[in-house]
Amino acid sequence: MPARANRRRFSVEFGDCDPAQIAYYPNLVAWVDHSTHHLFASAGFPVRDLQASRGIQVPVVGLNVRFLSPATWGDEIDIDSHVGRWGSKSFDVHHRITNVATGDAVAEATETRVCVKLDPKHPKSILAQVIPDDLRVALDQGDAVTRVI
Amino acid sequence: MPARANRRRFSVEFGDCDPAQIAYYPNLVAWVDHSTHHLFASAGFPVRDLQASRGIQVPVVGLNVRFLSPATWGDEIDIDSHVGRWGSKSFDVHHRITNVATGDAVAEATETRVCVKLDPKHPKSILAQVIPDDLRVALDQGDAVTRVI
Amino acid sequence: MPARANRRRFSVEFGDCDPAQIAYYPNLVAWVDHSTHHLFASAGFPVRDLQASRGIQVPVVGLNVRFLSPATWGDEIDIDSHVGRWGSKSFDVHHRITNVATGDAVAEATETRVCVKLDPKHPKSILAQVIPDDLRVALDQGDAVTRVI
Amino acid sequence: MPARANRRRFSVEFGDCDPAQIAYYPNLVAWVDHSTHHLFASAGFPVRDLQASRGIQVPVVGLNVRFLSPATWGDEIDIDSHVGRWGSKSFDVHHRITNVATGDAVAEATETRVCVKLDPKHPKSILAQVIPDDLRVALDQGDAVTRVI
Repeated sequence: MPARANRRRFSVEFGDCDPAQIAYYPNLVAWVDHSTHHLFASAGFPVRDLQASRGIQVPVVGLNVRFLSPATWGDEIDIDSHVGRWGSKSFDVHHRITNVATGDAVAEATETRVCVKLDPKHPKSILAQVIPDDLRVALDQGDAVTRVI
Repeated sequence: MPARANRRRFSVEFGDCDPAQIAYYPNLVAWVDHSTHHLFASAGFPVRDLQASRGIQVPVVGLNVRFLSPATWGDEIDIDSHVGRWGSKSFDVHHRITNVATGDAVAEATETRVCVKLDPKHPKSILAQVIPDDLRVALDQGDAVTRVI
Repeated sequence: MPARANRRRFSVEFGDCDPAQIAYYPNLVAWVDHSTHHLFASAGFPVRDLQASRGIQVPVVGLNVRFLSPATWGDEIDIDSHVGRWGSKSFDVHHRITNVATGDAVAEATETRVCVKLDPKHPKSILAQVIPDDLRVALDQGDAVTRVI
Repeated sequence: MPARANRRRFSVEFGDCDPAQIAYYPNLVAWVDHSTHHLFASAGFPVRDLQASRGIQVPVVGLNVRFLSPATWGDEIDIDSHVGRWGSKSFDVHHRITNVATGDAVAEATETRVCVKLDPKHPKSILAQVIPDDLRVALDQGDAVTRVI
């Protein structure tokens, strides 16, 4: 059963690129983070609201990226994102970055995120939480259609 | 009477540079912001503590930069910073960015910052504040020696 | 006679914001740089092609920004850009950053850019150039309509 | 036999942090990239010179990061880097990011990089290269002492 998917399309800026004339690889990681935020918003659960209304945060605890072909200044890019694994307290967001003009895969990334709350007894500590059912359902529904934003 | 001055020395990273092989100009602006933070810390008033202990913030309301010569990947850079103008509620921080090896001026920047507190009646609004005397004295003392950090 | 204008609309990302919960001010400067690139592309003169076909670059030599109200995570933003002054070898690009929902001005910025070529006798030096007529006409035509991209 | 190791020490800037008050995770990835550049320079092979004198580049093709504890504004950070695996044409750079004050591990990262040259027949293509012996020896020598820069 396919998960909810979200697609973002944008062009690579001059300022995203490095002296090798290609998108600086840590910037691709920032694009991936942005895409998780957009995926959550598309499901009706902006990360900002999760924090404000429920005190829940979803920090990244693991990241795995394969860089497959360079993207460069002016390239139009798609990032397709969905949750590809659910644990009870953690989940994986899969991202595929594609060059729109050529169809080439630019990179594939997996973020492992964990659902946490601040520990009321130790304000600087966090406690892992079971993922709320409604959040999981919203991100896991099979009838979602890829949106282009 | 000279103000307290602070110097930071660092090298330009590959990732700071753009496809023209020079430091991307918005990154110089980030260096300038970092340098104000280091100037305040050197005077015993880390911006973070001002916020935590007194509720004071010092946001930037104006920025003026002249870019004089490019800096590139691997260049060693000095930024010299001091408060060059005091108003009652606002102040200007002057920054000079220099290429250490050549002595060339890379850029000169002036940030205008204002001393503010959150408005207790409208939590998203801010109110300009008279600059605290001890902060002004610490940043304005004439016997300060340029530190290299 | 109005100049060609270009508008970009986008939302402020989590990663654009700082611990004060607002868009980090050097990131607004990066948005401004991106907008000049989009303005040139909208006029049929992508900066990349100017470099490749004519050896012309348009580096920033001066920057002036007034920060008027903060933008925060999730805000929808418009940047309207046009060339507001032409010299023979330099020009000013004016940018107005607006919060779409509230209509509030977020910032106003002016970049001074200069038209240059690499000096064939000294490969690391640049020489100011008279702005090509066709570039000026394309950016200065009075019948341009603001595009939203 | 231990490989050459390199340590960089720096403090987390305000502008490195996000609205959750911690270092924005893609910025840790940029720190990692910077550290590989410093490791190569410490071994006498600045990446810039490899490109200029031999046409060799060492792009990242894989990245794996575990985020273990947050770093925040003002924290002093060490990054220890060394080459932990050599293939004939690829190698892994291991990075350990530590909070100096607490000794806590902030993150562990592995970059997989490949040694490439531009393909003279297809200027936009690259060809994997056997890693030069002198580069490998310089990065692999057993008597290297950790430098603090």
